[in-house]
Amino acid sequence: MKKVLLTDCPDEKGLIAKITGLCYEHKLNIIKNDEFVDNINERFFMRTELQGDFTKVNFLEELKAQLPKDCNLGLIGQEKMRIVLLATKEAHCLGGVLLKYFENALNIEIVAVISNYQTLEPLAKGFNVPYHFISHQGLTREQHDEAVAKQIEAYKPDIIGLAKYMRILSSDFVKRFSGKIINIHHSFLPAFIGAKPYQQAYERGVKMIGATAHYVTDELDEGPIILQDVIHVTHDDDAESLARLGRDVEKTVFCKALQLASEHRLFVNGNKTVVFK
Amino acid sequence: MKKVLLTDCPDEKGLIAKITGLCYEHKLNIIKNDEFVDNINERFFMRTELQGDFTKVNFLEELKAQLPKDCNLGLIGQEKMRIVLLATKEAHCLGGVLLKYFENALNIEIVAVISNYQTLEPLAKGFNVPYHFISHQGLTREQHDEAVAKQIEAYKPDIIGLAKYMRILSSDFVKRFSGKIINIHHSFLPAFIGAKPYQQAYERGVKMIGATAHYVTDELDEGPIILQDVIHVTHDDDAESLARLGRDVEKTVFCKALQLASEHRLFVNGNKTVVFK
Amino acid sequence: MKKVLLTDCPDEKGLIAKITGLCYEHKLNIIKNDEFVDNINERFFMRTELQGDFTKVNFLEELKAQLPKDCNLGLIGQEKMRIVLLATKEAHCLGGVLLKYFENALNIEIVAVISNYQTLEPLAKGFNVPYHFISHQGLTREQHDEAVAKQIEAYKPDIIGLAKYMRILSSDFVKRFSGKIINIHHSFLPAFIGAKPYQQAYERGVKMIGATAHYVTDELDEGPIILQDVIHVTHDDDAESLARLGRDVEKTVFCKALQLASEHRLFVNGNKTVVFK
Amino acid sequence: MKKVLLTDCPDEKGLIAKITGLCYEHKLNIIKNDEFVDNINERFFMRTELQGDFTKVNFLEELKAQLPKDCNLGLIGQEKMRIVLLATKEAHCLGGVLLKYFENALNIEIVAVISNYQTLEPLAKGFNVPYHFISHQGLTREQHDEAVAKQIEAYKPDIIGLAKYMRILSSDFVKRFSGKIINIHHSFLPAFIGAKPYQQAYERGVKMIGATAHYVTDELDEGPIILQDVIHVTHDDDAESLARLGRDVEKTVFCKALQLASEHRLFVNGNKTVVFK
Repeated sequence: MKKVLLTDCPDEKGLIAKITGLCYEHKLNIIKNDEFVDNINERFFMRTELQGDFTKVNFLEELKAQLPKDCNLGLIGQEKMRIVLLATKEAHCLGGVLLKYFENALNIEIVAVISNYQTLEPLAKGFNVPYHFISHQGLTREQHDEAVAKQIEAYKPDIIGLAKYMRILSSDFVKRFSGKIINIHHSFLPAFIGAKPYQQAYERGVKMIGATAHYVTDELDEGPIILQDVIHVTHDDDAESLARLGRDVEKTVFCKALQLASEHRLFVNGNKTVVFK
Repeated sequence: MKKVLLTDCPDEKGLIAKITGLCYEHKLNIIKNDEFVDNINERFFMRTELQGDFTKVNFLEELKAQLPKDCNLGLIGQEKMRIVLLATKEAHCLGGVLLKYFENALNIEIVAVISNYQTLEPLAKGFNVPYHFISHQGLTREQHDEAVAKQIEAYKPDIIGLAKYMRILSSDFVKRFSGKIINIHHSFLPAFIGAKPYQQAYERGVKMIGATAHYVTDELDEGPIILQDVIHVTHDDDAESLARLGRDVEKTVFCKALQLASEHRLFVNGNKTVVFK
Repeated sequence: MKKVLLTDCPDEKGLIAKITGLCYEHKLNIIKNDEFVDNINERFFMRTELQGDFTKVNFLEELKAQLPKDCNLGLIGQEKMRIVLLATKEAHCLGGVLLKYFENALNIEIVAVISNYQTLEPLAKGFNVPYHFISHQGLTREQHDEAVAKQIEAYKPDIIGLAKYMRILSSDFVKRFSGKIINIHHSFLPAFIGAKPYQQAYERGVKMIGATAHYVTDELDEGPIILQDVIHVTHDDDAESLARLGRDVEKTVFCKALQLASEHRLFVNGNKTVVFK
Repeated sequence: MKKVLLTDCPDEKGLIAKITGLCYEHKLNIIKNDEFVDNINERFFMRTELQGDFTKVNFLEELKAQLPKDCNLGLIGQEKMRIVLLATKEAHCLGGVLLKYFENALNIEIVAVISNYQTLEPLAKGFNVPYHFISHQGLTREQHDEAVAKQIEAYKPDIIGLAKYMRILSSDFVKRFSGKIINIHHSFLPAFIGAKPYQQAYERGVKMIGATAHYVTDELDEGPIILQDVIHVTHDDDAESLARLGRDVEKTVFCKALQLASEHRLFVNGNKTVVFK
């Protein structure tokens, strides 16, 4: 039986020894171990892939007893992550994840797609995923967010993926799903924060464009960055072709970020992430 | 005999036909031809590698007569570009270009290095390049820039390369060498404009860092971008290691930008560049 | 009205002048022009995007009259390329193209999917594309290829895309669709030619893996290369994870190659390609 | 006081617990820990950065007593690696490392350069590094290798870097410095093994070229790969320009491989490497 042990706690001496010592004691074999210490914030992060018999003893309780009280510990089995995807009209990020889901390439279960337009319904339906159309028309932001949030909660997802969901989320919404929302931003943050990043990129005459997957926090485009990538562009690319080229990067970065999440490789560390690839 | 014809003029119909027609008429063989039309600004750019006998007729004068009056035309032979490099204390960009010069890998002649410190004198001397130490101590920015400018002018360079020259240039200096100054900026512009970009990058928790080569204009970090590149970094990199990793990208991008310049592959188009690779 | 003029002929002086001169004469505006001369094989390639009125004169006939007799000339309008995709069991390349097709991101019309298995039928159906299951069981290679070829011909495609079609094609099949078959090979050719490239890559301990899109010729894995890309891997990747990572590169490279084809940016030049990006 | 502990031994349960437990017992703080288990060959590799007081106890001896007998253990301080560079006529890889050495960017001490030509003497002298010219003329391979080996041994280097040393090494030479020789090969191995890889690449029409840093073993171009990188090329690049572009990749990859070695991040695992970045 395989599980992943996640440790996130204030740094102190002997943490690795204590944790791996207890694993050894309980005959839990360490398949793979990654650790990182943030020396500035004195914080310790470790991800440990374990194999063994977890049924006999309460390994996690024993571990908690040995570690500092304010440790965040997680022991996660092989069950798939449940994900709800929010989208608007653009198909590439939503379709990219749906295709990976069809390929069985991500450790996720896409439980629903929610959109403020009907445009992408055929795409979701083609992959046999429930699609909820919740129009924002005639609703305030708070009303619409509330309707979307209720639909999300009906599915009890582990992760909410914003697959080019082109709406600003209310502060309440973000808090309600704190630490669970992953967004794909269509620029190499912090360049071109805000609207129309490809138009901005064209006007500045950059020679590369990028995409950024990040956790969503209350401040727009300021959440902890998970992953970024870029591609080279030329003087020959206008705002439209930048957007077209950018969609490939967005799709790739978004899918990879969800994959990292689904394999429990992400920790949030203040306004940054720790990513154990 | 080989020459490069550079055409930069308002767009109108038939420009390629006129130019290549006259080449054909004068038995100038086109080895390679690159063109770009900026449709928004209605501007035409072309770089044409020609081979043939340029001695018999005044090809350039004839061409001027056939093209619109406000055409910028250049016909450039195989002579090496003369370059003066300005540096401060960091060796990597200066050394990178000096090494390429030693390898004979760039179509340039490094005629001098000027620095406000003596730190890099052994490096320049090791490559037999004159080194001028012009301290800024006790001088106003204008006085120092004037002293540096005079020394530069003594060498009549085609290009002034700022190889990590960590001083803000006065407006007069920039005008004096307008269109000739190429800088390497230690970030992926427009992200992290200004001082300490690696510290800024660390604090934002980005997963990539970059470098940007650009022409210097009066507005700091806002000149036309020539080339950019990035590398992936991780949570494990602090500001110091970001800077160390970044130096490799800076060196590579700076050398490539100078190479593009030396091969006459760059046009300035407003606040952008056209780069024929 | 927009068209693309494709010129592929033995090199001689004045070709650009003649072609662009005739365009000018007929008031065809050159939007974009790319040319390449293979000096070793003395061959000239040019791709010219034209805008204007093609109805009044027979531009192409006039052009043929002015150029050498053995010129290959094409004048192509905005109609979408018709493509048939062949696949076996793996979904990523097929799905990648279907998704782009759904997004309307490629200038193609996917007219059919043909497979020797039924595995991918739901995927094609989800995108409303006809799916033909032609089992190879009980058939010789020639018989199966004949059945597939007949089904292909019923659709009169411009391009046949092998989206991880895991069968070796008979010589007759390749000839029948000569110059029209584009394959994605799951390695950085010419490394790891043949079967199980990811197992080969794992055993050799490479630090990068790649994918190659190429035209199919009679010699296995030896056709003209269109596009290649790679990703970094580590000691931690086994043959299975190399394959998983590789699928992303395969998908991206395959989609880009079809896009290049659909925009008429590819020329075959002996056992190489000329690619005007 | 900082040291790096390197563990390379047959895998068994509890290795991490034992090692980190002893570190904790001796109040050695773990700054960074990387481990890898090769499940197929049942081999365990770990690199542990430690900080503490190593003077009081014999930590390494105690560790050996607790671990299986056939463990390879190393405990290495902050002293710089001594390196001898071998070169022929090409300056880029040699110069690249010398420049990094000048910048103090690598944890190495370049103790000497040895070459079978005098071409690069000014380069080494410019960086104040001893240069030994040992011509191969009139000598058998074995005689020349013997002369070079003697000169190398006089410097007692930890690493011998082949900075484009264009000679095939005798089997005796390789054995004499087994596990210490790092070569830069001018292709993306295993593609284009052997001579003239850029000519081979041109003839095959590849769209990327690469470079490979590897440990040298008795079989030509077959040693464990440390690092690889590639760049995109086009139909426009001939064998000469491929070689010119390739030199940048060679230089970068070679320098990075030496840096990894100098920071004790490399393990040889059969015909592969384990690289802890």
